[in-house]
Amino acid sequence: MSEFSDAAALVMARCEALGSLSQNPSCLDRRYLTEQHKLANQLTSGWMIEAGMTTWQDSVGNIWGRYTSAVPNAPRLIIGSHLDTVPNGGKYDGMLGVVAPVTLMAMFSGEGRQFPFHIDIVGFCDEEGTRFGTTLLGSRALTGKWQDEWRRLKDEDGISLEDAMKNFGLDFDAINSATIAQTDLLGYLELHIEQGPVLEQENLPVGVVNAIAGAKRFSLTVTGMAGHAGTVPMSMRHDALCASAEMILAVESISQQRPGVVATVGKIENAPNGVNVISGRCQFSLDIRSEEDPLRDAALAEILQKINDIAVLRNVELKIEQTHSAPAVHCDSALQNTLLKGVTEAGIVPKVLASGAGHDAMAMAEICPVAMLFTRCKGGISHHPAESITTDDVAASLAVMHHSLRTLKY
Amino acid sequence: MSEFSDAAALVMARCEALGSLSQNPSCLDRRYLTEQHKLANQLTSGWMIEAGMTTWQDSVGNIWGRYTSAVPNAPRLIIGSHLDTVPNGGKYDGMLGVVAPVTLMAMFSGEGRQFPFHIDIVGFCDEEGTRFGTTLLGSRALTGKWQDEWRRLKDEDGISLEDAMKNFGLDFDAINSATIAQTDLLGYLELHIEQGPVLEQENLPVGVVNAIAGAKRFSLTVTGMAGHAGTVPMSMRHDALCASAEMILAVESISQQRPGVVATVGKIENAPNGVNVISGRCQFSLDIRSEEDPLRDAALAEILQKINDIAVLRNVELKIEQTHSAPAVHCDSALQNTLLKGVTEAGIVPKVLASGAGHDAMAMAEICPVAMLFTRCKGGISHHPAESITTDDVAASLAVMHHSLRTLKY
Repeated sequence: MSEFSDAAALVMARCEALGSLSQNPSCLDRRYLTEQHKLANQLTSGWMIEAGMTTWQDSVGNIWGRYTSAVPNAPRLIIGSHLDTVPNGGKYDGMLGVVAPVTLMAMFSGEGRQFPFHIDIVGFCDEEGTRFGTTLLGSRALTGKWQDEWRRLKDEDGISLEDAMKNFGLDFDAINSATIAQTDLLGYLELHIEQGPVLEQENLPVGVVNAIAGAKRFSLTVTGMAGHAGTVPMSMRHDALCASAEMILAVESISQQRPGVVATVGKIENAPNGVNVISGRCQFSLDIRSEEDPLRDAALAEILQKINDIAVLRNVELKIEQTHSAPAVHCDSALQNTLLKGVTEAGIVPKVLASGAGHDAMAMAEICPVAMLFTRCKGGISHHPAESITTDDVAASLAVMHHSLRTLKY
Repeated sequence: MSEFSDAAALVMARCEALGSLSQNPSCLDRRYLTEQHKLANQLTSGWMIEAGMTTWQDSVGNIWGRYTSAVPNAPRLIIGSHLDTVPNGGKYDGMLGVVAPVTLMAMFSGEGRQFPFHIDIVGFCDEEGTRFGTTLLGSRALTGKWQDEWRRLKDEDGISLEDAMKNFGLDFDAINSATIAQTDLLGYLELHIEQGPVLEQENLPVGVVNAIAGAKRFSLTVTGMAGHAGTVPMSMRHDALCASAEMILAVESISQQRPGVVATVGKIENAPNGVNVISGRCQFSLDIRSEEDPLRDAALAEILQKINDIAVLRNVELKIEQTHSAPAVHCDSALQNTLLKGVTEAGIVPKVLASGAGHDAMAMAEICPVAMLFTRCKGGISHHPAESITTDDVAASLAVMHHSLRTLKY
């Protein structure tokens, strides 16, 4: 893979450069419509121009570069990912999927390679949703899914989305001009770090995504009876934390028995939470995902039934509130096969895996076929400064994309 | 029990009066060495004087009243409880055990009754330890168990115990003058609300305490591996919260199988505690008590073994830190029998029960025989404004004490 080594090293250096643009001096934190968002767009458009591309910023704040086809009225293929980060994030989540294809275009440019379609690379301005609490703002502007009431969304300083756009030089009321036509759109490709441990465990640099899991989230509140830890006999207790513990283990064991499903209790708040007080109320989250919605919903039904049974047996009150629901997105089989062929041509064992995390491709799937390539990341760690990938794996990713784009049929 | 009805009504009114002395206008909160401590002592000493008693305040701030014996060089019986409260506390925890015997002394005085021993009623100044984080300050001054380094204990406003004593008109260096001689001491009796649900369940107004449970406390920290809730397969997880949930259920089930033992996980802190993040670290408390130390320690050994096994099986790191240890205190059988005889004479079914909560009697047990009488409280609720007792149950408690003191052998 030595022909991609130099480009891969450049990708790593560019991720490093983007990683230095942070609104917080002590960690990487780059949010939508900030000075650092502007700087990241400028840096990226500079690399795009170097690669021989034509660049523009759209009305939501995404940065674009076109590797122009010589064919008259050529259709467009979009490749991209996001340039924003979570607070205390890593340097590769999102950025890799913008920087790597831009660097690849410079290779194509050097090779004098022409395509029968435009290759439009997009750096989305907001995928994480950290600033305004609503995710995928960049890609959802392309699909025409912005809602008028979002103008009043506030960041933690009380600045509205509408005002933040104005300060950045954008106009909330012009958001529809970012919406793109579907008629000349071949599809959307996204390169992203895996953010999970599967490729590392399989000892593979890359993998092809077949689906992005659909997630449902719930907030569960168990109300028992608080009491003195010394004076209430075990047989007279209605301990909300013990009931919750049994429910948490039910979530774990049921999802362990259902391949293709992951379910997580990530958050728990106990009250009164004193060392000498029996728990009176316990609130916890449930996040359940699968690449197949029916699999997820069957596991969910079993979990909720079991949780209800536990509540009844323990005579505690149970309140379940759904807080989120998103269907699974299936990747386009033709694009997926193109990527798999690219993997094989790069001399890598082909591996298909699902994405448990959400991505811009979820939004893009509403308007065109999508596919994703995952790059191995160390320990599966993401959303953390320890996020890490190797130059060799970037070279492998570039090789796969190089092969895939050259052979893309449509 | 009608002969005690008027006295019981007076006790209720006096608890109400003490309940109005609070450093916080929105709830009952009366801590050591405050203006409200002083007011409570003054109010109580007024009632003592009305009852024909001689009163004094000792060098730690306890208020005393003596129902004096006519016998030369008579020994002393101490009866008491505490006058301080927890923040947002109830009106009966502690106060009942001071106000009821004072009111009883007024009855004895009215009856012209004489005893061959002095009856010394004490209102302890600090049992809860809320202000300086160290409990039983009042009773431990009597037993000579104050430590010199306590002078530097600070309250939440940064005021040291030494300075707070000075502001109150006391002198830390004179604390030893509160220590009492053991040679002429018959014993210590304490009336207290149960703070648990046993008497209510048994439909009994009072019960005689046979032991005060010894408690051990631990802080347990489970370290697993944080990760993305969508991307880490169930089989590759080291979920610290799931491991903790299994440990919490082990604590519950083992203590359920060990009569006489209660064990509680009352506090839990999870990290990073995000809805879409697998738990990486979970810290929880363990409080275990029994009236029999060997019972407690056997259950504890089984619990810790099981928790260790869970940690090994789940491949998570476990750290266990002991934060507290107090041995059980056994009540004096002669005093206990005197109270039981009083219960029977009052026409009440005798019931012996252990105290899961700590009391001033634990400290007093170091210097003399102790016994306790519990009064039923509504729903077992304590340390809360909803703390509630009935006038009839106070009348029953007064009747039992009246009979017991009249028949006390020594």
